[in-house]
Amino acid sequence: MVKVIIIGSGNVSQHLIAALHKTQNIGNEIELVQVFSRKKEAIMSLFDSDKIVNDFDDLLEADLYIIAVSDDAIASVSDQLPFKNRLVVHTSGSVSLDSLNNNNRKGVFYPLQTFTKNKEVDFKNIPICLESENSTDFQLLEKVAKSISEKVFAINSEQRKALHVAAVFVNNFTNHLYHLGNEICKEHQVPFDILKPLILETAQKIITLSPEEAQTGPAVRQDGKTIETHQAFLSNKNQSNIYKTLTQSIQDNGKKL
Amino acid sequence: MVKVIIIGSGNVSQHLIAALHKTQNIGNEIELVQVFSRKKEAIMSLFDSDKIVNDFDDLLEADLYIIAVSDDAIASVSDQLPFKNRLVVHTSGSVSLDSLNNNNRKGVFYPLQTFTKNKEVDFKNIPICLESENSTDFQLLEKVAKSISEKVFAINSEQRKALHVAAVFVNNFTNHLYHLGNEICKEHQVPFDILKPLILETAQKIITLSPEEAQTGPAVRQDGKTIETHQAFLSNKNQSNIYKTLTQSIQDNGKKL
Repeated sequence: MVKVIIIGSGNVSQHLIAALHKTQNIGNEIELVQVFSRKKEAIMSLFDSDKIVNDFDDLLEADLYIIAVSDDAIASVSDQLPFKNRLVVHTSGSVSLDSLNNNNRKGVFYPLQTFTKNKEVDFKNIPICLESENSTDFQLLEKVAKSISEKVFAINSEQRKALHVAAVFVNNFTNHLYHLGNEICKEHQVPFDILKPLILETAQKIITLSPEEAQTGPAVRQDGKTIETHQAFLSNKNQSNIYKTLTQSIQDNGKKL
Repeated sequence: MVKVIIIGSGNVSQHLIAALHKTQNIGNEIELVQVFSRKKEAIMSLFDSDKIVNDFDDLLEADLYIIAVSDDAIASVSDQLPFKNRLVVHTSGSVSLDSLNNNNRKGVFYPLQTFTKNKEVDFKNIPICLESENSTDFQLLEKVAKSISEKVFAINSEQRKALHVAAVFVNNFTNHLYHLGNEICKEHQVPFDILKPLILETAQKIITLSPEEAQTGPAVRQDGKTIETHQAFLSNKNQSNIYKTLTQSIQDNGKKL
């Protein structure tokens, strides 16, 4: 039996608690023995409240401590752990392994997904990126990760940094393009809902096609006339600037191919 | 019985032929009587080859002629039609109604989706944007559109222009962000597949949340430290420029809220 303790009660923590609790219920060899949380009420519906502690000295012995707190708090939480030489990991895409305190064995358990409060996600399909200092620890992390996800990867700190930046492009920036699309619709009294099937299909295409194969539109087909019409149409300076920048990038990329 | 003729054999045309053929088979009151195509072989698997013509003089009388050709060819095709006062529409998001020849009654039948060759789409979920010069013609367009889609909208030329620009943002530009994410992954030996569940979830979120509610990441939470780390990480000038532009736009937008 692998004993796991989660530290934190935010978004990632809550989804992890739910997923580990589920795997435990179906008879796996993982046991979530405790959760550390300063806000007991945030997770009381997810986990046995007797096993929620808010004092580091009350932490039990476990095989794995998962620190699922905000990036800024990871180092300080790991500094406060009152034990040595146990396996302690964080769940962040952008914090290096070295941010964890040297008192314990370090690792990373990074589920690469965008988590929304109260929106259930199917952990089975969430890639979990693992890093550790030695292979025994890696095997343990792998066992825990595979109990909740079918997509487990060994990713070192440098690769994880790249992944995190790439995730900003395909998630944060993409969502901002949805915002700009919505803004343009609003300005011209068109329901944004009309664009939703297109948004879904654009994402679904990428599952089977490379982004280069899937690229369509005036920029890639060098349709200068349409581009000019669009530029003239966009009176909003910010929209126009982004249109220009991304059109140029698509065209430059086309020349490289 | 509404008699329809499609002119053209490209991507949109092929998907329309398949959808109209299907609706006809299930006993609807729409009949696809002919397809005009210079490349018979492109659509022979979709439609009775006896009813494919390649001479405008062979076109039969019909209630609706749908010109589904490239934007540049729409005006010239409509000029060549050897009849008058019939209903002729095009399927383009970016061409105005007025581009059609005055000999016939004009309209637009614009399915807003990204069509990929050999990838079936479910037309039921594709929004069709309609425009016409009078209400009788609109009713006919509506009847045809509703026979293949559950999402039919009255959209005038100005609104359609806005939709088309917005579609460039949420489709073409979004796909380019996927490309940049892929590029970053490749540069650091990380499989792009790890990002695919995130890409799907980002799109699916927008079905229930507004883009403003769904926005996450370092830019919106004003996390200057992470932004700096990312900027330092991006040695590619184009990636760095786009990172900066979109981060700034997210932050400016945050200030407006």
